[in-house]
Amino acid sequence: MNPVLTKTIQETRYRLASARQGGKSIGLVPTMGALHMGHARLIDAARSECDFVVVSIFVNPLQFAPNEDYSRYPRALQADFEVSGRRGADLVFAPGVDDMYPEEQLTFVDVPKLSDTLCGAFRQGHFRGVATVVLKLLNIVQPDRAYFGEKDMQQLAIIRRMARDLRLPTAIAAVPTVRETDGLAMSSRNQYLDATQRQAAPVVYRSLTKARELAQAGEQDASIIQAAALDILKAEPQARVQYFELVDDDMQPVRAVAKGVHAAAAVFFGPTRLIDNILCL
Amino acid sequence: MNPVLTKTIQETRYRLASARQGGKSIGLVPTMGALHMGHARLIDAARSECDFVVVSIFVNPLQFAPNEDYSRYPRALQADFEVSGRRGADLVFAPGVDDMYPEEQLTFVDVPKLSDTLCGAFRQGHFRGVATVVLKLLNIVQPDRAYFGEKDMQQLAIIRRMARDLRLPTAIAAVPTVRETDGLAMSSRNQYLDATQRQAAPVVYRSLTKARELAQAGEQDASIIQAAALDILKAEPQARVQYFELVDDDMQPVRAVAKGVHAAAAVFFGPTRLIDNILCL
Repeated sequence: MNPVLTKTIQETRYRLASARQGGKSIGLVPTMGALHMGHARLIDAARSECDFVVVSIFVNPLQFAPNEDYSRYPRALQADFEVSGRRGADLVFAPGVDDMYPEEQLTFVDVPKLSDTLCGAFRQGHFRGVATVVLKLLNIVQPDRAYFGEKDMQQLAIIRRMARDLRLPTAIAAVPTVRETDGLAMSSRNQYLDATQRQAAPVVYRSLTKARELAQAGEQDASIIQAAALDILKAEPQARVQYFELVDDDMQPVRAVAKGVHAAAAVFFGPTRLIDNILCL
Repeated sequence: MNPVLTKTIQETRYRLASARQGGKSIGLVPTMGALHMGHARLIDAARSECDFVVVSIFVNPLQFAPNEDYSRYPRALQADFEVSGRRGADLVFAPGVDDMYPEEQLTFVDVPKLSDTLCGAFRQGHFRGVATVVLKLLNIVQPDRAYFGEKDMQQLAIIRRMARDLRLPTAIAAVPTVRETDGLAMSSRNQYLDATQRQAAPVVYRSLTKARELAQAGEQDASIIQAAALDILKAEPQARVQYFELVDDDMQPVRAVAKGVHAAAAVFFGPTRLIDNILCL
């Protein structure tokens, strides 16, 4: 059955009120659209755990810097609607910018400590924009559970911490990264890659698996692991590394690798910036 | 009938779930305790509009600067519990600091534009602390309506804007300031005043009513009104003015008085800082 498509907050709340009154548990999968298999797995997870599944599709201007790809970010509402329906979503909520931001946004949510490293060090205001829009979406949908991909590790850490710190009534669920057969993490931005860049892009995952291998073989010195991973990335002429870091749960760089440490990378292929991460130990 | 007293978030949510399942509308009156007639009117308003009334009592460390009066802020839980009961509250929620902040608070909510003027210019981080704790309380109680006093005008403006910007499902209700017969606005901090200071304190309200009189008589120049009000305040030797401003809805100082403009003042009497405000037009 096709999901319901809502384009306004008002109609969304109206539809959800009746689901809620029927005692249904509600799952939310917040996305920026251009859905791929990674999103599909998020919807699958919500479908398996909740009675009523909402997929939101909103390319959030607040999380893009002026020099970033907001205007050319891929939009494919019809295809996204169909994918959502095939995975069993009950409602697709695709608000317009004017509905989400009817006036100047003056209120911001921030988790500074977790936002200042990794991507946050290079994308000024990005995670403030992410946290703020996610909180808005959670307030609109009021889901029992909300689903986020592990690929966006720092985003996930920030949203988890925000939910805990603000005592949100929503449980934050994480879903593993889905990869192409050559290891490239699924991302809506992969479609920006030309053939040469696409062929080169799995080097990111190879650098991450190298870091994990070394850590699991007993190497504890983060700088040695980082250097080995950077060697792999630098051997690929298409790749331009923005960062490769080993971080703890609070997204702080570590000197020594311990349980829970992730390796995380941001790498440009031409103008396209890809991120990925792996649990080392 | 006595209200229920809860001291943990978990028990509070449990009690509220049964009220909610019974279809009751929920009203929240967030306070820092030391309840006076101003608070009583907030509870009265909630009682008249909601089926189930919660009074929260929490002196929030996050909104006090190190040099401020957090440790000596008046605490009177037993009396507050009784007042709440007499006004018809169903539940008094008095969490401990460890329950509200079980770990370092890393997430903050901020409305910078509305927070940078008036009290915010002198109390660094204050409104960030207020907005953050109010959002936590709203997330814990999930009320249909939450009640705030007009005496704390800037706080009210910030919380209203936060609720709108974040699409909170809670309506923010404002309740008029309650005054002593000599005009002094009710405040938990009035009990800090000695007899001489207490006698002098109504000068704040007199300066505000002067501003309103001039505005209503047709004076549009904010600086003339401000000067007249400051003359009144400076004639009182017990009073030390921190600010006297005329501001619009966004708490921005105005040059010309127009509809909706408030006069607002912060004045010290000895070490005690009192605030008050009035709608001029």
